[in-house]
Amino acid sequence: MIPRYSRPEMVSIWSPETKFRIWYEIEAHACDAQAELGVIPKESAEAVWKAKDATFDVARIDEIEAVTKHDVIAFLTHLGEIIGPEEARFVHQGMTSSDVLDTCFNVQLVRAADLLLADMDALLEALKTRAFEHKETVCIGRSHGIHAEPVTFGLKMAQAYAEMDRNRNRLLAAREEIATCAISGAVGTFANIDPAVEVHVAAKLGLKPEPVSTQVIPRDRHAMFFAVLGVIASSIERIAVEIRHLQRTEVLEVEEYFSPGQKGSSAMPHKRNPVLTENLTGLARLVRMAVVPAMENVALWHERDISHSSVERNIGPDATVTLDFALARLTSVIAKLVVYPDNMMRNLDQFKGLVHSQRVLLALTQKGVSREDAYRLVQRNAMKVWEHGADFMEELKTDTEVMAVMTEAEIDEKFDLGYHTKNVDAIFQRVFGKS
Amino acid sequence: MIPRYSRPEMVSIWSPETKFRIWYEIEAHACDAQAELGVIPKESAEAVWKAKDATFDVARIDEIEAVTKHDVIAFLTHLGEIIGPEEARFVHQGMTSSDVLDTCFNVQLVRAADLLLADMDALLEALKTRAFEHKETVCIGRSHGIHAEPVTFGLKMAQAYAEMDRNRNRLLAAREEIATCAISGAVGTFANIDPAVEVHVAAKLGLKPEPVSTQVIPRDRHAMFFAVLGVIASSIERIAVEIRHLQRTEVLEVEEYFSPGQKGSSAMPHKRNPVLTENLTGLARLVRMAVVPAMENVALWHERDISHSSVERNIGPDATVTLDFALARLTSVIAKLVVYPDNMMRNLDQFKGLVHSQRVLLALTQKGVSREDAYRLVQRNAMKVWEHGADFMEELKTDTEVMAVMTEAEIDEKFDLGYHTKNVDAIFQRVFGKS
Amino acid sequence: MIPRYSRPEMVSIWSPETKFRIWYEIEAHACDAQAELGVIPKESAEAVWKAKDATFDVARIDEIEAVTKHDVIAFLTHLGEIIGPEEARFVHQGMTSSDVLDTCFNVQLVRAADLLLADMDALLEALKTRAFEHKETVCIGRSHGIHAEPVTFGLKMAQAYAEMDRNRNRLLAAREEIATCAISGAVGTFANIDPAVEVHVAAKLGLKPEPVSTQVIPRDRHAMFFAVLGVIASSIERIAVEIRHLQRTEVLEVEEYFSPGQKGSSAMPHKRNPVLTENLTGLARLVRMAVVPAMENVALWHERDISHSSVERNIGPDATVTLDFALARLTSVIAKLVVYPDNMMRNLDQFKGLVHSQRVLLALTQKGVSREDAYRLVQRNAMKVWEHGADFMEELKTDTEVMAVMTEAEIDEKFDLGYHTKNVDAIFQRVFGKS
Amino acid sequence: MIPRYSRPEMVSIWSPETKFRIWYEIEAHACDAQAELGVIPKESAEAVWKAKDATFDVARIDEIEAVTKHDVIAFLTHLGEIIGPEEARFVHQGMTSSDVLDTCFNVQLVRAADLLLADMDALLEALKTRAFEHKETVCIGRSHGIHAEPVTFGLKMAQAYAEMDRNRNRLLAAREEIATCAISGAVGTFANIDPAVEVHVAAKLGLKPEPVSTQVIPRDRHAMFFAVLGVIASSIERIAVEIRHLQRTEVLEVEEYFSPGQKGSSAMPHKRNPVLTENLTGLARLVRMAVVPAMENVALWHERDISHSSVERNIGPDATVTLDFALARLTSVIAKLVVYPDNMMRNLDQFKGLVHSQRVLLALTQKGVSREDAYRLVQRNAMKVWEHGADFMEELKTDTEVMAVMTEAEIDEKFDLGYHTKNVDAIFQRVFGKS
Repeated sequence: MIPRYSRPEMVSIWSPETKFRIWYEIEAHACDAQAELGVIPKESAEAVWKAKDATFDVARIDEIEAVTKHDVIAFLTHLGEIIGPEEARFVHQGMTSSDVLDTCFNVQLVRAADLLLADMDALLEALKTRAFEHKETVCIGRSHGIHAEPVTFGLKMAQAYAEMDRNRNRLLAAREEIATCAISGAVGTFANIDPAVEVHVAAKLGLKPEPVSTQVIPRDRHAMFFAVLGVIASSIERIAVEIRHLQRTEVLEVEEYFSPGQKGSSAMPHKRNPVLTENLTGLARLVRMAVVPAMENVALWHERDISHSSVERNIGPDATVTLDFALARLTSVIAKLVVYPDNMMRNLDQFKGLVHSQRVLLALTQKGVSREDAYRLVQRNAMKVWEHGADFMEELKTDTEVMAVMTEAEIDEKFDLGYHTKNVDAIFQRVFGKS
Repeated sequence: MIPRYSRPEMVSIWSPETKFRIWYEIEAHACDAQAELGVIPKESAEAVWKAKDATFDVARIDEIEAVTKHDVIAFLTHLGEIIGPEEARFVHQGMTSSDVLDTCFNVQLVRAADLLLADMDALLEALKTRAFEHKETVCIGRSHGIHAEPVTFGLKMAQAYAEMDRNRNRLLAAREEIATCAISGAVGTFANIDPAVEVHVAAKLGLKPEPVSTQVIPRDRHAMFFAVLGVIASSIERIAVEIRHLQRTEVLEVEEYFSPGQKGSSAMPHKRNPVLTENLTGLARLVRMAVVPAMENVALWHERDISHSSVERNIGPDATVTLDFALARLTSVIAKLVVYPDNMMRNLDQFKGLVHSQRVLLALTQKGVSREDAYRLVQRNAMKVWEHGADFMEELKTDTEVMAVMTEAEIDEKFDLGYHTKNVDAIFQRVFGKS
Repeated sequence: MIPRYSRPEMVSIWSPETKFRIWYEIEAHACDAQAELGVIPKESAEAVWKAKDATFDVARIDEIEAVTKHDVIAFLTHLGEIIGPEEARFVHQGMTSSDVLDTCFNVQLVRAADLLLADMDALLEALKTRAFEHKETVCIGRSHGIHAEPVTFGLKMAQAYAEMDRNRNRLLAAREEIATCAISGAVGTFANIDPAVEVHVAAKLGLKPEPVSTQVIPRDRHAMFFAVLGVIASSIERIAVEIRHLQRTEVLEVEEYFSPGQKGSSAMPHKRNPVLTENLTGLARLVRMAVVPAMENVALWHERDISHSSVERNIGPDATVTLDFALARLTSVIAKLVVYPDNMMRNLDQFKGLVHSQRVLLALTQKGVSREDAYRLVQRNAMKVWEHGADFMEELKTDTEVMAVMTEAEIDEKFDLGYHTKNVDAIFQRVFGKS
Repeated sequence: MIPRYSRPEMVSIWSPETKFRIWYEIEAHACDAQAELGVIPKESAEAVWKAKDATFDVARIDEIEAVTKHDVIAFLTHLGEIIGPEEARFVHQGMTSSDVLDTCFNVQLVRAADLLLADMDALLEALKTRAFEHKETVCIGRSHGIHAEPVTFGLKMAQAYAEMDRNRNRLLAAREEIATCAISGAVGTFANIDPAVEVHVAAKLGLKPEPVSTQVIPRDRHAMFFAVLGVIASSIERIAVEIRHLQRTEVLEVEEYFSPGQKGSSAMPHKRNPVLTENLTGLARLVRMAVVPAMENVALWHERDISHSSVERNIGPDATVTLDFALARLTSVIAKLVVYPDNMMRNLDQFKGLVHSQRVLLALTQKGVSREDAYRLVQRNAMKVWEHGADFMEELKTDTEVMAVMTEAEIDEKFDLGYHTKNVDAIFQRVFGKS
């Protein structure tokens, strides 16, 4: 996570200020529940809320931690400085540090997920808009980087939309999975604290109680969360690579928006490089690199070891901040993408009519020609186009073996672009519920 | 995937015979739909079913592919050899190879998922049985590998159960995601084939139509599938590492079942090594290594490139076969695990009473001692146990500062193990819906 | 590792037959050394060589292992069946299974490395040949997929050569690192065996003694080995991606060799897809996926655990067989690559002269125009080419601000392609030691 | 990279100030070479050095970049503000941004490598000191976590030393590989700049000229560099895991140094957790996660794309800063590690004499007992120890079948610990060149 690829709202979720605020809320709600159970005095629980509007002094907490070498104790000491040591006496009672740390981390991940879901909504909206805008904008489809048959640019956007919509559902599921709270004590047995405290805190924070914890919330939940971020990043990469390809000099079917004052290169003023989507390709690698360590974090020893902590202190902010930035950047790229329908048609026609060879092949077999013969007939005319720049339709019409089974009109019909787009509405109906 | 870590049922899903059988069914169902639409003659569609009970000759297909360098064409040629070239003429019409390959791959993944789900059911059953058997078997809980507070062995099993149950739900979701069918032609536009064919084939194969495909089914689905396998593998690793720890010579709270004739080592006959769980640790790494390439596979170029294919030819079988083997092995390890409750108690008592220090600390603060003072009092007596092998309870009872606020009976009460297990039933209720 | 992507010589290194042969040699050489030390009778050591020309019966060894559940004991029992149980009595004395297993694995990796080094020699040769063949074949250089300045196709080959040559050196170093032998007993202390045995066996097998082992040879060596394979795979991917780009329909500067009988697609006969380099892209992912588990294998517990074993049984053969296949495939692709110099020139000229804008910019600043002004002048003329298809040279010659500082002849000179290739010889001299 | 796991010297290598300073030096040296070649005026080259002691204003450069959206142009503009726009006119002439960026990145990596090498020297020194200190400190060796045969703690340190020494050599090689400089222009052809400039700048910066570059320095060099960091991290993990195991409550053979004021846990005052080595385990995962994206960075498109840049902006600092911190932390852990030789002996004797079973087995076979019989004899007595706490030596002496071939004195001799340590000197000689 570096400022260059960060947005403030996501960054703020991971600030020390936010973290201490969440710690405070966990402790304060736990005190309420403890007071309700009669474990601690009601006045003590109420006193904790005196810090409700306090700003916690991060530098002061760091200072205390430098001595105690324990972050939660440092925080509690500082809390005592605010609300009075006597009033703070019952705070954290029966709890273990991880109750606070893990519940807080999940709160942060849930908030991060909510931002990411909003990002995805914006991206979906942009993709949908461009999809309908270019529903009928015909361009060549390519397999293996080689011209295949016509598609529309709107279809490309619809594919991206469907993929991102799946990703949205995955993230929603991962958010649900990560939205748990554990206040279960040193080894998860609730020996020193009633499960009711966990239930209360969970409800106040919009979480569910973790059914069974150890000292920590089980890390398979987090592994799943980061795995989903990795899949989303991979989808971003796919769309970015598509745009990079379409912006290649020889293709130039789309271009990233290029603001008037922007300089493309220090030396080559005509260059407009797809630097945003190239950047997204790299950002995808960054998000994805969190997946393996998050999985390695699962196998903690016994009721916990702390090896996961340093990993999460990094990948928690890094993966979410980077993905937030990437989603926003991609949304902007899509929304502003300059599309060149004329270039799309020029490319589609590059090999005069060859794009229709599949239809001709089919027509020949439907006329009773064997698959092998039809293939041979199409291939020999296609090769004239490929090698000598001939026009495919003209060649077919002078091929006596072809003309023996097809009429000119029948051949003409096989070169109709509308044939390829006739089911686009049906596909849009599937993807968007309308066309 | 090597025989040593393979089970036949999962291996057979990935055999050439199974693959060609699925290809055949896709093609035959597609012909039915095409005939229904009037695109091909009904008799031709019916003729395809002549091969219904045929066994496809893998060697022959390989032979043809050596010439054509195209696997689907080779298969179709061989099918023509079985049902007659004339009857075979309409097979595959309007389709592209990927329609067959991708739909087949998803069928295989769905079948693999079904086997894995059955594996997980068996594992869950074994975990549940051992959980209830040892619900009250007290052992020491450990954080950082260091004794913390008592738990029960049944709780450890319940944690594993809850984790695997989450994994089961994840796999179920991944199975749903991967259960799609694409019969959409060369670039996914249904230009040459009616969407109704896809709908028909999907229904026959227990799949859903892919809402929008390119030439291929989008690979984010597969990335998600393999990511889930990676999470499951990580959970297997966690349980395996737990058992390996508990079987350490100095701990010896459990042992993998050791059959009478088995030799532990060529040189040290007393050794009983946790080789199965060590093996599971390695197998987890193998399953997990499919995750990154599956994500790298997402960003195919334009309407498809074939870079994903070699990856999937390997990780498809490898990850599922290995995970199937690992789940079965873990189930057996759990079911047969030899548990030593006496050793558990011996370890728990290793530092005479020190395990109860947390309760004493709490009791002191509840008696009005400040957190800092209570900590100091507990620590100074604990250190005598730690450093000189003293008995914690006895030390407390001779500490005048402690006795100034607590009675002997109160101290005795703090050393009751039942205190730690009182909420085990509540946890079991959460996890298993009963206790 | 699947037959489709395997070559027999590399596969045979990993066969059970080869493995047992190596085990035998280790044991037989160890017996010689033990006899020399007087630890076992000379006749017993000699007797072991009776099996020198024996073929070990893999099925029989498997049968024994099914009972003993120990592979080395099974092998030794079978060896006893060949040379007589009495003679076999002293075999393996003082050794531990890992002495045999680990030394054998390293022998296999060394042999694999030797094959890979030979593969790389062939690849380097092919790259060098094509580099010199196309040393002066001018094509457009591209950054961000956008036309930049001219390069030559030979330079691209030279870059690939230099990169692969570095990889060759890395593999050579990794081979040296992995070429160690450990015969140090159960925990590496040589308690039961003299270090001289290790020295003797190492010398006979072309290895160096491992300076300090535990029960096993330390796995950082293997992690390094597989990491190097991962880097080589990444370089293969780079070259493969370059070719895939150059074969794109709109670019078509090179093509993979397409044999006369080969069918490109079941439906589109004109398509010649870069399927070999797409395949190489996928194979690179497969080789690379061994890197992380090989690193995870390093942290074995204490003097060893066996978690690494299942990983290595897979990635040992898989990564080396796949890389061997990939290197051979890439060599063939390079050697047979069809290069289209005419298309290269056509692409280079796509934006009439714009490729020379950098030179013009430089010339203007050398004439005393400020960097900002020069940039502005070049940009305004370049935009006419870009947007209206104008000819860059002509535009410059009609721009009064430009002509105020430059003559027509000076402008002409800036459009000379030779300017860009003048240092190709110097680069070749650096890379190949000749030009 | 977060402050908690960072050390200032390494962090400063990656500061904007350092980066701009290196950029400046590259540009200034390039101007000298250009002046020497007569390409630019000598006075202009000299004028650049006016900024020699200047501090570059990072905020100002950021401000300019916000407009130009190009970092190198922003820097050059700011340089012009310092030395005068006229004097700055010739700076960067013939160069491309990547000439500056890539050369700078390599300078930073070289400096980082130098710090890491110094870190490793300190770690090696600490390991060596502890190795010699505990050369003869006997402890039990363990395979599979199960007691095997005696080793010494010094041997464990020697193994770590040898492994880290290999890593040092790997890093040295990686440092050499990364120490290259490219000043070759927009596509690496030296079209606009003489190769002599590169040679001059390289020499001044302690680098070698990159033999053949594209627009960028080839990324296989960087992939190798980060792969080596990943291997080093894996070795750190191995040592950390060893210490964590040895500090387990039931083992307690070593302890991380625990400062007097340090609190282990908020609730359990007796706990001394191996938190530093647990932390190192997590940090190893963080360093390792850079390996895959660094390899994915290799396959840049054509003469370059910029996808690698965002990855490197993160993993460059993150991996080196984290590894620097981890090496220093490990050095401190090793140097201060509290070793408990008494506990080591207590653990070694846990199964009264069973540790010597291997020697007895060997003795029996040397007395002429068949391998199978000897195994049976040892096993039956070992089981009495294992299951009933018997004393192995005593059991052997009452086993008539054993006593039929061995005398009591012979049995006594087999229980001598010195037998196991007799070759420790020889191993130290191999590792340290002295013993």
